[in-house]
Amino acid sequence: MKIMVGGTFSPLHAGHKKLISRSFELAGPEGLVVVGLSSDNFAGRKSHPVMTYEARKAALERYIESLGTATTWEVEALNDRYGSALEADFDILVVSEETLPVGLEINKLRRAKGKKMVEIHQIACVLAEDGRWISSTRIIRGEIDDVGRVIRREE
Amino acid sequence: MKIMVGGTFSPLHAGHKKLISRSFELAGPEGLVVVGLSSDNFAGRKSHPVMTYEARKAALERYIESLGTATTWEVEALNDRYGSALEADFDILVVSEETLPVGLEINKLRRAKGKKMVEIHQIACVLAEDGRWISSTRIIRGEIDDVGRVIRREE
Repeated sequence: MKIMVGGTFSPLHAGHKKLISRSFELAGPEGLVVVGLSSDNFAGRKSHPVMTYEARKAALERYIESLGTATTWEVEALNDRYGSALEADFDILVVSEETLPVGLEINKLRRAKGKKMVEIHQIACVLAEDGRWISSTRIIRGEIDDVGRVIRREE
Repeated sequence: MKIMVGGTFSPLHAGHKKLISRSFELAGPEGLVVVGLSSDNFAGRKSHPVMTYEARKAALERYIESLGTATTWEVEALNDRYGSALEADFDILVVSEETLPVGLEINKLRRAKGKKMVEIHQIACVLAEDGRWISSTRIIRGEIDDVGRVIRREE
């Protein structure tokens, strides 16, 4: 199976790691995973400060290498929400609850172009210790760490 | 992996077959697939006539047997849209584009009950020869057959 998945991954937290590790499981050892990574220019539109593309890419590659997977993979820069997902020939788009709407939009745009529609796999979100989602925004605010431990409780 | 999937399957067409065969692939040979099948009472709310539960179950079982799968499976009667999916311990709910909203609702209800949220896998729809979706309604209307061949064109 050929899988596409994407994100900004700044910083790479437990929710992103699940998104990526599940993508590799779905691809299987003979499959391919293409990880789209927001370019600095595209990521610059986020409401919070973002690490450089090089730093984010290095952390992503270290994590993928730690999986010890036989699956072929590559990282591609995303200059918009879609990257090559509107044109590429692939099987499954892996999304989080946050990015499901983008996935549905990609299929709608593919259909309009006469491209094969793809399967969409939404992983379950990873909850932090406090029962709320793990998100980069919450980590940057200092509420939780990258595995979802609460750092400071609001009074 | 433990997979849940459901439908009325009246009649079982190429789109349903893809939904079911992909569920077995996602489960893997050591997994379990639970196929929810609308009861006669629940299916009776459809706008078109529905075959009996026994006839639909027999066709479904024949199809699953034709897959020659090693995966464990069972068919359970659905008396509502959720069946046991709100309570059961499982990994992935497999849905079509039509049933994605029910899948998202199941996760919301599971979360409210404190149950683990599940992954949602949406298969790509199967298009009929005329480029529109295959659906039981279109088959019953006599527009297409169960593999999506056009039977009669509107003038």
